[in-house]
This record gives sequence, structure tokens and C-alpha cells, in this order.
Amino acid sequence: MAQLAGLKALVFDVFGTVVDWRASIIEDLTSFGRERGIAGDWTRLADAWRGGYHPAMDRVRKGELPWTKLDDLHRMTLDRLLGELGIAGLTDADKDHVNRVWHRLRPWPDARAGLERLRKKFLIGTLSNGNVTLLANMGKHSGLPWDVILSAELVHHFKPDDEVYRMALEVLGPEPGSVMLVAAHNGDLVAAARNGLATGFVARPTEYGPHQSKDFEAEHAFDVVAASFEDLATRLGA
Amino acid sequence: MAQLAGLKALVFDVFGTVVDWRASIIEDLTSFGRERGIAGDWTRLADAWRGGYHPAMDRVRKGELPWTKLDDLHRMTLDRLLGELGIAGLTDADKDHVNRVWHRLRPWPDARAGLERLRKKFLIGTLSNGNVTLLANMGKHSGLPWDVILSAELVHHFKPDDEVYRMALEVLGPEPGSVMLVAAHNGDLVAAARNGLATGFVARPTEYGPHQSKDFEAEHAFDVVAASFEDLATRLGA
Repeated sequence: MAQLAGLKALVFDVFGTVVDWRASIIEDLTSFGRERGIAGDWTRLADAWRGGYHPAMDRVRKGELPWTKLDDLHRMTLDRLLGELGIAGLTDADKDHVNRVWHRLRPWPDARAGLERLRKKFLIGTLSNGNVTLLANMGKHSGLPWDVILSAELVHHFKPDDEVYRMALEVLGPEPGSVMLVAAHNGDLVAAARNGLATGFVARPTEYGPHQSKDFEAEHAFDVVAASFEDLATRLGA
Repeated sequence: MAQLAGLKALVFDVFGTVVDWRASIIEDLTSFGRERGIAGDWTRLADAWRGGYHPAMDRVRKGELPWTKLDDLHRMTLDRLLGELGIAGLTDADKDHVNRVWHRLRPWPDARAGLERLRKKFLIGTLSNGNVTLLANMGKHSGLPWDVILSAELVHHFKPDDEVYRMALEVLGPEPGSVMLVAAHNGDLVAAARNGLATGFVARPTEYGPHQSKDFEAEHAFDVVAASFEDLATRLGA
């Protein structure tokens, strides 16, 4: 069992770490297109939409946009991509429904069972760039047993800005090492460690499907490296 | 049914509105004292402890103290009262346990069933001066099915400061009237209305036991006045 005597709370990166955004979006929008008779390359949309994620947050980070919640950044990117990919015929209500696919993402197969075990020993929560209602709706939709929803939105900074990690430690700690970030992304965990959080890596090597280019394994000495959320629970004695 | 077409989320005052802090504390600490062989007037402690709540928050509001989470204000008040009431023999671990009685408060008999119904139609959350871990631990302890934990701690202001209500509306709305505060306290709801929230009053006339002096009924034209959380669910079509 890992030596993390003062650990009280675990916060989780969500997109990619807890939920399989790519397969969820492709499946959800393929069904939507079929039902509504709208033709589109939904796989290409999913990949391009996620591809617009970091550039959109960077526009906020650089001050080109005021603080904008992720739902609204998603919508800006979606509106652009529907044009670029020639997907036509969506009403405004359709676009709202499509944009809210990020509220309907489903967890990796091990996630829910692992969280249920971890929750018996620790406070568990999100620490995501998703806005609060996105994360709360997803939690309801997919049965994720969060004790708390912590979001970049609460500090008007996106990860990996320090403010996000510091907020989690202040609120759930505040002793260094009392809060662990669990993520499938090396960069997120490096930023967390820099801000006093413990770190847990769980690889999600199919997150980007055939386009995965990194994060196949832990590249730093994180406190725990686990094969799944269930393995993480075992390693943390939960 | 109340005319609140745009209502998406309900946030709840917690102490007194969702949980019966007075009876919970008296019962919990009476058991504790008996088990540990510590004599004390636990009823008087409960009343005096809550009596120290507004003065302690006022010290933060006036800048006499820096931002201090409610757990720590509770502990300062507890340490003073143990002396004043002549309750002796508690170890540091005992004092920690006693202070965390606020994490173990139990809901009024109608609360859980009403929340379960309301949760099917709305996002539901806390909007309390309790800190995040206090509220999350209480939710786990008492089986309160919160979708989100919103707390004064997230904006470093205590209710009825405007910042707390505005944060809830920004995060869960943001359209005026899209978020309702439910509370047993007229003053809390007046402040919420001033900041664009819808308002729901549920009387808790025994909150302060024999010392209740106000909030027996709604004193303003709130959007909904209900007899219980179950009645609230019915009135909101949930």
C-alpha cells in the first residue's frame, strides 16, 4: 500500500481519466444523426472538437476572451466545426443538444466501481476544466458518486494554472499531500505536484483512439501508478 | 404549481433548513459525555455554540480575522465555551471529535425524501456558510443526495454577503430566477432575492427549541412557501 498517511481526499481529472469522451461522443452523435436524418462525420467532429479544447482555453488564458465557461467554449468551437465539416440542418435546439453531449459522457468500465470503493475511505471529487453544471449533470447521468464538484470555473482559471490546484488543496486539505489528483495526463499531475498535491496516475491509452500520441505511461515519479480505478482503490487500502 | 418556468437548480441553506442542528448536537454530545465520563450541560453548550455563530462570522466580515473556514470558527468558539461552561477533561482528539459534530448533523424527517424527489427534476445543492468538507461529510453521514456542494468558503464571504448568492447564480444559472434558494430564514431569502435568485421558504419553527424567537413564518412575498421539503417538491412539480 502506498505511504500516504495524511491523505484525506482524492480529486479526479474527468475528461479522459474518468470518462471516455471520444467513444461517448461518437456513439451519441451517430445515434442523433441517424434519428434526425442529419449526415455528418461524427468521428471527425469528435476529434476536431477536442482538438479545439486547448486553443479555446488559451484564448481565455491570454485575455483574448473574458472568463468563459467550458460549455460556452465548446459551443463556439462546435459552431465553427459544423461549418467546416459541412454538417447542416441543425436547429438551435439541436445545437444545444449536441453541445450538451459533454454532459452525457460515460465512464470507463472500471471507473464507477473504483470510485464507490474509494468513496468509503476518502472524500472524492472532480477537479476538471468542465464547468460545474457540466460536471454535475454528467455525474447524475452516469452515476458517478462524487462528494464534491470542484471546477476550474470556481477560480476562473483553467488547469494547468496553479490557481485550480491550490483551490482544491485549500478547500479539501489544506496540508500538503492531504489531497491527491488522479489523472491520465502527465502534465496535469506535474502541475498538481508543484502545488502540493499528491499524485496518482492511471493510464488511458485509448483516450484519443488511433490518434493517441502521449500519456501511454507515467513519465514521472508519481505517488501512485495504478492500472485502473479499482487497482487504485486496492493500492490506497480502500 | 408555482410559476417558475426557467427554474433549473435549487440551492439550500443547511443549518436549520435541512438539518436539525440543535437536537443533533444535544443528542450526539450527551452520548459522547456519557461514554467518556465527561459531565457537561450539552444543551447549554449547543445553544451557546450556535449563539457564537453570527458574532464569529462578523469578526471575519469586519476584518478582525482573516478569512477563516467555519470549522475553525466553531473550534475557537468551542474552546472558549468549554472554559466558560466548566466542561473539563477533553483531550485534543476529543475536542476535534466534538467540533466535528457539525459534520454529523441529521436532517429533518421530511428532508431526504423531498430532496430525492426534487433531484429528479432539478440540480440540487447546498448554499451554506459551512465549509466544503463540513457539508460534504455531512452529506455522506446523513445520506443527503447533493449534486453540488456550494459554500461561502468558495468566495471567502459569509451569507448574507451578496458574493455568495451571486456565485450560486453565476455557476448554476446564470439567468435571474433560474436558481432558487430554499431556506427557513427570512433574512437569507431577502438577500437571495436581492441578488436575482428565486426564493422558497420552509418554516422550521423548532430550530432553536424553546429559544426560537423569529422565522415562524414567511414575512415577505417569496416565490414558494411550503410546509416541508415534500410539499416543496409537490409545489414545484417534482
